[in-house]
Amino acid sequence: MFLLNTWYVAASSDELSATRPLGRRICNQPMVFWRDASGKVAATEDFCPHRGAPLSLGRVCEGKLVCGYHGLVMGCDGRTVSMPEQRVRGFPPVKAYPVIERYGFIWVWPGDAAAADPDKIHHLEWAESPEWAYGGGLYHIACDYRLMVDNLMDLTHETYVHSDSIGQPEIDEAPPATRVEGDEVITSRFMQNIKAPPFWQMAMRGNGLDDSADVDRWQVCHFVPPSHVMIEVGVALAGHGGIDAPKDKKASSIVVDFITPETDTSIHYFWGMARRFKPEDAELTATIRAGQGKVFGEDLQMLEQQQKNLLEFPGRQLLMLNIDSGGVQSRKVLERLLAAEAAASAASTAT
Amino acid sequence: MFLLNTWYVAASSDELSATRPLGRRICNQPMVFWRDASGKVAATEDFCPHRGAPLSLGRVCEGKLVCGYHGLVMGCDGRTVSMPEQRVRGFPPVKAYPVIERYGFIWVWPGDAAAADPDKIHHLEWAESPEWAYGGGLYHIACDYRLMVDNLMDLTHETYVHSDSIGQPEIDEAPPATRVEGDEVITSRFMQNIKAPPFWQMAMRGNGLDDSADVDRWQVCHFVPPSHVMIEVGVALAGHGGIDAPKDKKASSIVVDFITPETDTSIHYFWGMARRFKPEDAELTATIRAGQGKVFGEDLQMLEQQQKNLLEFPGRQLLMLNIDSGGVQSRKVLERLLAAEAAASAASTAT
Amino acid sequence: MFLLNTWYVAASSDELSATRPLGRRICNQPMVFWRDASGKVAATEDFCPHRGAPLSLGRVCEGKLVCGYHGLVMGCDGRTVSMPEQRVRGFPPVKAYPVIERYGFIWVWPGDAAAADPDKIHHLEWAESPEWAYGGGLYHIACDYRLMVDNLMDLTHETYVHSDSIGQPEIDEAPPATRVEGDEVITSRFMQNIKAPPFWQMAMRGNGLDDSADVDRWQVCHFVPPSHVMIEVGVALAGHGGIDAPKDKKASSIVVDFITPETDTSIHYFWGMARRFKPEDAELTATIRAGQGKVFGEDLQMLEQQQKNLLEFPGRQLLMLNIDSGGVQSRKVLERLLAAEAAASAASTAT
Repeated sequence: MFLLNTWYVAASSDELSATRPLGRRICNQPMVFWRDASGKVAATEDFCPHRGAPLSLGRVCEGKLVCGYHGLVMGCDGRTVSMPEQRVRGFPPVKAYPVIERYGFIWVWPGDAAAADPDKIHHLEWAESPEWAYGGGLYHIACDYRLMVDNLMDLTHETYVHSDSIGQPEIDEAPPATRVEGDEVITSRFMQNIKAPPFWQMAMRGNGLDDSADVDRWQVCHFVPPSHVMIEVGVALAGHGGIDAPKDKKASSIVVDFITPETDTSIHYFWGMARRFKPEDAELTATIRAGQGKVFGEDLQMLEQQQKNLLEFPGRQLLMLNIDSGGVQSRKVLERLLAAEAAASAASTAT
Repeated sequence: MFLLNTWYVAASSDELSATRPLGRRICNQPMVFWRDASGKVAATEDFCPHRGAPLSLGRVCEGKLVCGYHGLVMGCDGRTVSMPEQRVRGFPPVKAYPVIERYGFIWVWPGDAAAADPDKIHHLEWAESPEWAYGGGLYHIACDYRLMVDNLMDLTHETYVHSDSIGQPEIDEAPPATRVEGDEVITSRFMQNIKAPPFWQMAMRGNGLDDSADVDRWQVCHFVPPSHVMIEVGVALAGHGGIDAPKDKKASSIVVDFITPETDTSIHYFWGMARRFKPEDAELTATIRAGQGKVFGEDLQMLEQQQKNLLEFPGRQLLMLNIDSGGVQSRKVLERLLAAEAAASAASTAT
Repeated sequence: MFLLNTWYVAASSDELSATRPLGRRICNQPMVFWRDASGKVAATEDFCPHRGAPLSLGRVCEGKLVCGYHGLVMGCDGRTVSMPEQRVRGFPPVKAYPVIERYGFIWVWPGDAAAADPDKIHHLEWAESPEWAYGGGLYHIACDYRLMVDNLMDLTHETYVHSDSIGQPEIDEAPPATRVEGDEVITSRFMQNIKAPPFWQMAMRGNGLDDSADVDRWQVCHFVPPSHVMIEVGVALAGHGGIDAPKDKKASSIVVDFITPETDTSIHYFWGMARRFKPEDAELTATIRAGQGKVFGEDLQMLEQQQKNLLEFPGRQLLMLNIDSGGVQSRKVLERLLAAEAAASAASTAT
């Protein structure tokens, strides 16, 4: 159960070269992505209307997607452009997907193409401003996308899953506050006068701060439909205002999570970190990226085994504690939007 | 949906030693093959009537198949011959399969044994005559056998799948002609005054011809039920008659394809090439075999992914272009024969 | 179809450390095992009542099982002990399993906990007495547990599966005698004046006997519900009384097999050998263990392929020869006990 009339991250820009198409299943739909001669991205079903071969096994020649089986040339609109020695006008089209490249990512709209509105892609300031640097990666995880939303909206798991990097008992001890603003869910946690855990000590050193100093730490998780979680995180030298401290007194970042459903029980997980200090320091970007990749890799086994357990015991009601409030509220937003999408779809079918 | 009252290639002769049985699933039936003391091949169900162990895990001792679990000795007729300290007369028989070794292959008849007629094995001149040399191999491919028939009856795929060996744009440009003769489907393509692609340049050198000369090239594909495709292929120095050119002016072969269904969506694919030049040159046989093995290996991923796509979109109608005519006609022959087999089976059940 | 109100071996004692829990599926139920502060073993469902994570991915801290996701502490009784900053009294319990550590193994009762009786664990003299030494291991095999019972209650398979270690034709030639005593099934076979096969020659040397001497050999297989098979095996210098020969004239052991169902078609197979000679010789224990591990590994492929064949041909009746009598009688005992368990369960549901 995922929203279809919305934008999902399908790939990072650097995954898509000028000559090779990329096949990827999004929301249970096999898609192929490629760049036209101007570099603009196109996306259609990954299905050649000639004999059903996956177009993603083909090549991109001068911006045209050529099927690797018998040379059919597919257009950005899902209509066949040409095929050697054939008249293609009567060929049945395949589905074309609205697709936009923005902020270093390729965004796709798997639902009703007529409803696709580029303005509905959320504004990401960190992706546009030279004050920020970004590094990230992609994991494939065999779990329902909502289990990953739960994971990111309840950071008490850091104490257990990431005990030697970003976890610390003070997270458990600081109760989170959750609020809903329209379709957005925000869970905040603030900790005062604590020691920074290893990952943040590394970041403090990266920003020229004394890594043994007492700090104020914050985590402000934002869930935004369909399944993005952005987390403002950081530490500031204690007593300088925490999240509002001046730039030279803190190390702060945004944890970026685009969770794209592949199937009902698997996701493409685009993770990354945008930081607002020393954006020009490429080595620091690489260090942070490696550290975050290791940390986020620790969640994989837990999520996949949790998924298996839930499939085995489908009737069991899970607990909804205060720490789960972020995930619970996010699911409520999703349920409301899913119901609205179903109602709109039923209405359009009826007319 | 495959024919059962027909001969399929189960194995090449050299796969079956004198001491080890061979287990192989043919048309969804697990079979075991072995050689008796005289070397004659036998085949039965791969199921020991004692406790259900696969007989193929056993041994062949003095031409007898001995179950590897408790020593039951299975006869060529599917009846138990003996078992230590047991009276075996009342043991239930397992199915025995008509089986014949001919032309370097082991042929099995998976259907009604009473109907098996050795004369129905197609005559293969190249397998008997000293004027020919043969080399080949076996691939396992997860696709419906008819997708491989399609593949071989439409060689325009060579331009895309095999672009650096046997493919060339001139194939696409030369329209094929398809005709049906009884149960046989023949698709022909002739190209004049072209350059030979790399594989054929190698073959020209092998036959002492100038590999840079202009050539006439031909491809004559023969589909023969149940699922054999033989393709006359070759190049001749331009203007010497093409396929009819004298032997010293051409390099010509027959591409041999025995496609044996393993399950509804997998095949044992026996591929090879029989050539009529320099048959005594074993090194040339090995070179051609290696080249062909590489080329035919390029089809695997495409066929398996095409199969997955077709299973995902079972309702979609594929196109039937002129280039697909060979495959389309072959399927029509198959459908006619399948209907006849079903009707005969229904009639024999009714009486 | 396996008994539930009975004790199964879940693990060997040395598999379970003081700090790491062990997850294992027993009788289709995912379980987690851990040691409390005193070393006592506990077992519950491998399911955290908070969000469904497997508890076996957690840690044991000071004898408490801490969920690796958000820190819930699970008690031995399946009730939550604590969770950071949470009141846990209302948390739903998970199933706790009766569990006992005895004889170097961890025994679990997967059925009705109220019926669990520690006295129903069979007495194992060899596990308690200093006159005996034990070595063993664990294999995972994809077959119904009853196929392994069949295997062990009909040792004519040794001649074929283990032809170069413990097999010899004399086994086939000596008919077994099978009797049922209550719930126990006993199959005996005695061979006189034969040569010892390689494994037993090694054991004879280990006990200081001439390995080329003629011997009397015996195999007395005991099936005990739910699925234990103990086999008295050995060789004695010929004419000294066989199984009753004095200790210095024989090499004798008990083959120990605890067969624990994982699913309907897979088992945890705890195999081992208890011997009554030179118990202090650790090197001999290791040699025998390695030899037995190799021998018992030879059964895996046969059992798994037999299982596949039986799943493919579910309607086929297997033979029940005299050599199969041990397995056949064991299944009859099982069927009687399974019917009794079903009847008791129906009665308790009705009241």
